[in-house]
Amino acid sequence: MIREIVERNLADPASVRRDAEEALRKAESDRNNYFLALDRALPEKAEHIAGLGRGGRLFGLVLAVKDNIDVAGLPTTNGAPYAKSVPGRSAAVVRMLEAEGALVLGKTNMHELALGATNINPHFGPTRNPHDPSRITGGSSGGSAGAVAAGVAHIALGTDTGGSVRIPAALCGVVGYKPAYGSLPTDGVKPLAPTLDHVGLLAKTVSDVAYLMEVLSGVKAEPPARFRFAVLRGVAEADDYVDKAFWRAVSVLEEAGGERFEVEVDARRFSYARAAILLAEAAAVNWGYLKSYGQFMGRDVASLLRVGASLPAVAYIKALEVQREAKAYFASLLKRYDALATPTTAIAAPRIEEADSIAVRPKLLAFTELFNLTGLPAVSVPAPAPGLPVGLQLASSDDEKLLGIALAYELSAGRLS
Amino acid sequence: MIREIVERNLADPASVRRDAEEALRKAESDRNNYFLALDRALPEKAEHIAGLGRGGRLFGLVLAVKDNIDVAGLPTTNGAPYAKSVPGRSAAVVRMLEAEGALVLGKTNMHELALGATNINPHFGPTRNPHDPSRITGGSSGGSAGAVAAGVAHIALGTDTGGSVRIPAALCGVVGYKPAYGSLPTDGVKPLAPTLDHVGLLAKTVSDVAYLMEVLSGVKAEPPARFRFAVLRGVAEADDYVDKAFWRAVSVLEEAGGERFEVEVDARRFSYARAAILLAEAAAVNWGYLKSYGQFMGRDVASLLRVGASLPAVAYIKALEVQREAKAYFASLLKRYDALATPTTAIAAPRIEEADSIAVRPKLLAFTELFNLTGLPAVSVPAPAPGLPVGLQLASSDDEKLLGIALAYELSAGRLS
Repeated sequence: MIREIVERNLADPASVRRDAEEALRKAESDRNNYFLALDRALPEKAEHIAGLGRGGRLFGLVLAVKDNIDVAGLPTTNGAPYAKSVPGRSAAVVRMLEAEGALVLGKTNMHELALGATNINPHFGPTRNPHDPSRITGGSSGGSAGAVAAGVAHIALGTDTGGSVRIPAALCGVVGYKPAYGSLPTDGVKPLAPTLDHVGLLAKTVSDVAYLMEVLSGVKAEPPARFRFAVLRGVAEADDYVDKAFWRAVSVLEEAGGERFEVEVDARRFSYARAAILLAEAAAVNWGYLKSYGQFMGRDVASLLRVGASLPAVAYIKALEVQREAKAYFASLLKRYDALATPTTAIAAPRIEEADSIAVRPKLLAFTELFNLTGLPAVSVPAPAPGLPVGLQLASSDDEKLLGIALAYELSAGRLS
Repeated sequence: MIREIVERNLADPASVRRDAEEALRKAESDRNNYFLALDRALPEKAEHIAGLGRGGRLFGLVLAVKDNIDVAGLPTTNGAPYAKSVPGRSAAVVRMLEAEGALVLGKTNMHELALGATNINPHFGPTRNPHDPSRITGGSSGGSAGAVAAGVAHIALGTDTGGSVRIPAALCGVVGYKPAYGSLPTDGVKPLAPTLDHVGLLAKTVSDVAYLMEVLSGVKAEPPARFRFAVLRGVAEADDYVDKAFWRAVSVLEEAGGERFEVEVDARRFSYARAAILLAEAAAVNWGYLKSYGQFMGRDVASLLRVGASLPAVAYIKALEVQREAKAYFASLLKRYDALATPTTAIAAPRIEEADSIAVRPKLLAFTELFNLTGLPAVSVPAPAPGLPVGLQLASSDDEKLLGIALAYELSAGRLS
């Protein structure tokens, strides 16, 4: 889809300014709280780049950027007013997208310090799900997912330390791509837990994120004719609504040429290890904020940081050992199977007033966090669901293979729907 | 020197058995407690390898191995009776040396769990300095240094996490070489703190360790005609006796073609960071032993492990950040200078009854630990001293450069003496 928009823009550069004006208008009238800051000079910027005649592989695409990723001249809050600064230089990944002609519309709302998955931000308000504004978008890249789902931006950047790109993608019905650890640069991105941090992409389709990955890192993905995938069991219990959608998605994968297997995973120690690494590193990274602003933080964020601050070094070091085990274990699984499949989350988007950040964490994170611990690439794609969106999570050994299988799924879903 | 022994052995294979018998006899009558276990079949092994006619670049050299490095069939205690096991396979570095014809004489005494620098082992007794048996050898590779200094073994293996090869080398008057982090494999070596652990070499001369490094890792070192070296100031105060010997060694370096500079280093945060990494990782590695055998451990070792066990993860993570800073800082110094020079220790070997392990730690470790934190190669060579041995420590950016400068020092010291 974005490929077609770029082609149209190259043929008719005047459409770049029209798209920019429309995006800004939609963002300004947005009632779901997707944006924390907008670049109101966007139409002039659009006019300017159209006039340069340089084009680019992302020429004129409207880009929303999560507010923990620097964009020169716009404030970066990291979801917290006490952390606000205005960078003079954009993050590396933003510069790469801009160099190909993408236009930054604004900075998106997020969970405070990216440490949570509801996107109920006590300082800036919750982001609201475009499918039902009484519900959460999920997070912590909820503003980015909502802006894409609502058609305000063509593409968006997020970050993913435990599922923060894939979870809101699942809950908002878009595609959320977390590449392999290190595939996209994190310079200019606020750290949360550097061992687990990833920059990720949000767009409407797999074909869009595959195109973005081709532009950003040279990955050329093709859907395979046949592949082997394993459904992971024993990670978490999805509710009935999600479970049904997941198994419909599994059927789509089979129609796409997938041979299905099942694998029982003892995920509990992996989950503990991921939590220990996350909380210890998040406490180290945010130590100064916790000391100075702990009483102003959301209660969920402050309590998680305090747990991290009190964690013994020995527990952290042992968690890093479990991480090495997890990497070896999943690498061995991915010698037997081309991809692994789970629901992205165990529940669809809960209502805002029912979404207690701590209580809901395991239901949102249990499936996704495995692929932060292992650094394996993982994607959330929409599963066939009659009401609220549900995500199918696929993971694989490398970006190219994963995107190929996700493309096969998307093609098959398109044929079946 | 070892090169000549190997040549003699190749010309006269019968000398291999004679050397082996003499080494075993010396080790059996050793009153300085260098060995915890001996291979009494050594003469037969010597006879056997001489009969094979295969030779090897280390043919017939008698090798002493620190007791935290596995030798198949001999017990490994790691300096602690509660940690004893008998491995079926030798450590990688032992296999490399044996493949070139070296013969393992036995396993050497060490500081308990390698967590200390005095080599006063409460279970196996102290090792005694060959220059004065009322004094410590230093440690934790004290048995290996003593065995080489006393002429029992031609060469020895040690490990070095804060100076454990270089410190006993300095105190016993031999050469102790800690290669760059990762230059020698640690498989089959008991970990103490994996981020800081190195396998190191002990021998009588720089030319010997340079030859061993050539055999083990292909490094070909040549003494440079001219080089620039910086004396590090502000690390620790050496006592008068050591200071005088150090400055005599500096003159030798100048005679060798070295141009002298001085650099003030703010070493305190590096020292704290090294201690935090050491103690946290040592507590994680030895967690089970601390729980089960804490009351049987030396008081110094138990208290250090307890400090490590109570260290917060945040302090450990911040120490890893300081480690990255230290690496960058020393890398920048080593763009300006070819080598850095310090005394190896701030004192010569103290008497055993005066060598409280905790009190004496900073005097033994302050100079050496910098190069465990940074992973830079460092060597202790004998400095000109009228009585007890003193070490000159040299560090550089890579093994080849360091060994070249150490060779230049040794040649110059030989000319001057």
